[in-house]
Amino acid sequence: MIVYGRNPVREALRGRRRVERVWATPKAAREDWLREAPGLSQVDAAEIEVLAGSPDHQGVCAEVDAYPYADADSLLEADEALVVALDEVTDPRNLGAIVRVAEAAGATGVVIPERRSAEVTPVVAKASAGAVEHLPVARVRNLADWLGEAKDAGAWVYGASADGIPYERPDYRGKVVLVLGSEGRGLRPRVAAMCDELVALPLRGKVDSLNVSAAAAALLYGVLQFRSQRG
Amino acid sequence: MIVYGRNPVREALRGRRRVERVWATPKAAREDWLREAPGLSQVDAAEIEVLAGSPDHQGVCAEVDAYPYADADSLLEADEALVVALDEVTDPRNLGAIVRVAEAAGATGVVIPERRSAEVTPVVAKASAGAVEHLPVARVRNLADWLGEAKDAGAWVYGASADGIPYERPDYRGKVVLVLGSEGRGLRPRVAAMCDELVALPLRGKVDSLNVSAAAAALLYGVLQFRSQRG
Repeated sequence: MIVYGRNPVREALRGRRRVERVWATPKAAREDWLREAPGLSQVDAAEIEVLAGSPDHQGVCAEVDAYPYADADSLLEADEALVVALDEVTDPRNLGAIVRVAEAAGATGVVIPERRSAEVTPVVAKASAGAVEHLPVARVRNLADWLGEAKDAGAWVYGASADGIPYERPDYRGKVVLVLGSEGRGLRPRVAAMCDELVALPLRGKVDSLNVSAAAAALLYGVLQFRSQRG
Repeated sequence: MIVYGRNPVREALRGRRRVERVWATPKAAREDWLREAPGLSQVDAAEIEVLAGSPDHQGVCAEVDAYPYADADSLLEADEALVVALDEVTDPRNLGAIVRVAEAAGATGVVIPERRSAEVTPVVAKASAGAVEHLPVARVRNLADWLGEAKDAGAWVYGASADGIPYERPDYRGKVVLVLGSEGRGLRPRVAAMCDELVALPLRGKVDSLNVSAAAAALLYGVLQFRSQRG
């Protein structure tokens, strides 16, 4: 797989997967973090655009191993695990943005279903600013079933829904899974039914929904704030 | 100006600016909210793509008046004004995402500088899901000067910066301006110097920055949470 862009390539070089080769323009190749890159070739921007399949490469791309998905159950081992589960989020830019904010907020990982979901592609790596290289992302066959297993493992499962209780009310100590749905349709009924509690961010405008990555940012930092005050 | 996409056209129809004409595919034209649209023509998708200048039109576009920018000072009139000021945010998708979350969070408005900033284009309208039609956006000649005027008007000005104090510490009652900088460079020194306080979201990952719209979401909902608990 070819990842492209400054952050995705830099984070791949210090992340979990093997980097086979790196291509950079002469200008990009002068950057410090690229000097030691394995198999570095200097090529022109047009060649990088062909390799990357995108004009959005910022002068650098790299051949890396397939994305090393994590084991979903291992994400719940820590006492204060904080996992984001995504129900049919199909837009790769949203998935990337959510991985980025989850990694920044110190979440344990992200869980996505195998089907009807964006997977970790180079577009996602770019939108995540390379955070996919550090934050574990796991795929599960059936999200509702996995939420049941998470509850058995001692996690509390909170689903984001406009019908929920105010999001600042629950006690977010312990193992927590936050479930976010697709923007158009929200959580599927079977997924919502598996949640211990549905929680809502206040919506005070005329446009009655948030982008799913904005909701993730507000909820994750809300949980962090709760834990720092009462943890 | 031609706005395109379902949310941007729907919100333009119930927003502040005049809609001159609407073009929709026969399929899109069957939607309830479009039936009463002024000057509705049914055309094919290819024609809409030409009018919109984008393939991202979802079967509908509209000719609307120029964007009605608000007066920046009027945004500070309310006792609990909550204004987002953006220092050189040049990516239109980031501007749109910030307007969307600011509108959803019930903020008073967004202030952008006249130069070196994205302005409210159809791309921004799309990224905002039409929220630009409801939330006032104001342009100012010089952002640092305007922040000084905001302080004279009784506002407290908080700049988002990795060097800041924990963001949950300030007292966010009263008139508040949150200043967010460009992703690469953060706040310019003169803008940072005008802030009463610099505030930081905790960053616990290896990728040491947040997308500016994720930071806006976390900070805005943090202010709302503060106000709901102590307001």
